[in-house]
Amino acid sequence: MTRGLERFSMNTATLGYQAEITQTVEMIARAGFAGIAPWRRELVGTDVRQIGRLIRDCGLSVSGYCRSTYFPASSRAEWQSNVDDNKKALDEAAELQAACFVLVVGGLPVGSRDLANARQQVEDGISALLETATKLNVPLALEPLHPMYAADRACVNTTEQALDICRKLALGNPLLGVAVDAYHTWWDPKLPEMMERAGDEGRLLACHVNDWLVPTRDMLMDRGMPGDGIIDLSSFCALAEEHQYTGLFELEIFSNELWELDPCEIVNQAKRTCQSL
Amino acid sequence: MTRGLERFSMNTATLGYQAEITQTVEMIARAGFAGIAPWRRELVGTDVRQIGRLIRDCGLSVSGYCRSTYFPASSRAEWQSNVDDNKKALDEAAELQAACFVLVVGGLPVGSRDLANARQQVEDGISALLETATKLNVPLALEPLHPMYAADRACVNTTEQALDICRKLALGNPLLGVAVDAYHTWWDPKLPEMMERAGDEGRLLACHVNDWLVPTRDMLMDRGMPGDGIIDLSSFCALAEEHQYTGLFELEIFSNELWELDPCEIVNQAKRTCQSL
Repeated sequence: MTRGLERFSMNTATLGYQAEITQTVEMIARAGFAGIAPWRRELVGTDVRQIGRLIRDCGLSVSGYCRSTYFPASSRAEWQSNVDDNKKALDEAAELQAACFVLVVGGLPVGSRDLANARQQVEDGISALLETATKLNVPLALEPLHPMYAADRACVNTTEQALDICRKLALGNPLLGVAVDAYHTWWDPKLPEMMERAGDEGRLLACHVNDWLVPTRDMLMDRGMPGDGIIDLSSFCALAEEHQYTGLFELEIFSNELWELDPCEIVNQAKRTCQSL
Repeated sequence: MTRGLERFSMNTATLGYQAEITQTVEMIARAGFAGIAPWRRELVGTDVRQIGRLIRDCGLSVSGYCRSTYFPASSRAEWQSNVDDNKKALDEAAELQAACFVLVVGGLPVGSRDLANARQQVEDGISALLETATKLNVPLALEPLHPMYAADRACVNTTEQALDICRKLALGNPLLGVAVDAYHTWWDPKLPEMMERAGDEGRLLACHVNDWLVPTRDMLMDRGMPGDGIIDLSSFCALAEEHQYTGLFELEIFSNELWELDPCEIVNQAKRTCQSL
């Protein structure tokens, strides 16, 4: 089965943040993608409501708003400031009518070896956001990151762990769910089971596609375009669809190599890639 | 609680394979370690029985023999040849009176995206070794590797997955168990639960210690000496001991930086490090 471009969204990180957000929106719409996932850094100094209107006028939906400020901190004051910053981001996500606000939760505070404490701070942080998210009707998509980022980017590292947190903090509340990213989860022997559980629990809020290159030369900046690596992405997308995922498949690729290209060229490559998926 | 050097074994990889195995054995014994874990590559062209005798004469035990030839292959003939090679290694492990033969199982065959098939080939490969292992009385220690190695080194990536394989293939047979390595498993939210399960099921055959550096500059060759990174190794060792682990803690560090040092210097550093753990 092939999927038309109307099933795909472009995460703006894939384009390397090279153009202004208004140009980026137009480029992505012109190529025929159905959605966009913008980053907060691109909206600094802009009128977010106006950007939201532009996105809709171009016929795009917002598959996700990227992303949370990391929760874990070395002091309570710093943790609170992180939570407050995330509340501001939720206002922006609401203006953008984003399908979800993506939670990349952060790792260990500098100098800490206390992983259990970092994870507790994450749970407390998500708890502290739930009321605002509910009021604004912005779903929170908790994204498990690959275990190789546990120390410095996210201490939520499997889909099972993320779903357990959802159940614990928001039983029966569908405004907390998960974002399942192929790059972060392809290796997980429990992925099929957890994809099913996410679907059953109504928590599959976002699916990101990208590829794992062999060899991987850089732990952050060497993701591949779908098809260039070893992830069976057709099966990944089919699995999500089998379990009630009706959202867009979002293309999110951090890549030094890709970012050397002109964003128009990246969009064209991405278009061909998604159409063959 | 501190542990004396009599609780530690040196994996020879930590020394960068710089010296002859006979010198390495003597160096490690002289420093006061209780055990050694040699690699197959170091024994090529030697009389393995004689090396085993030397090790024992020096007062060292063999905490593990490293390691299996990867199982997954592109053809049945190649898979069979991998299994046969591992049977030869089991003979060597028996000569060395190794506490276990370490199974690092391999990832995807070149060009393959079929992770389920690779995992099946691993199960079939372990099955095919069990009779020989039982005859020789050499325990097989299945080592889950960090998920970042799933594509090219090992498609067994969590302790839970490894224990599930043990249960499936060798219910009631203690000659199949797990090697739990801090570097590969520290991030796993289920590690405490799985360490308990491994203990309860009598399958905790080996524990490896080393550290995760932040940042990690190389996916293979940038492990840290215990204490230099962010793993809470005191808790890791205590957790193992709490769950019936009475074997040695094996120091296994792949590190470009470390390997620039003279092996004597590495042994001295390691000695100080282990004594402070």
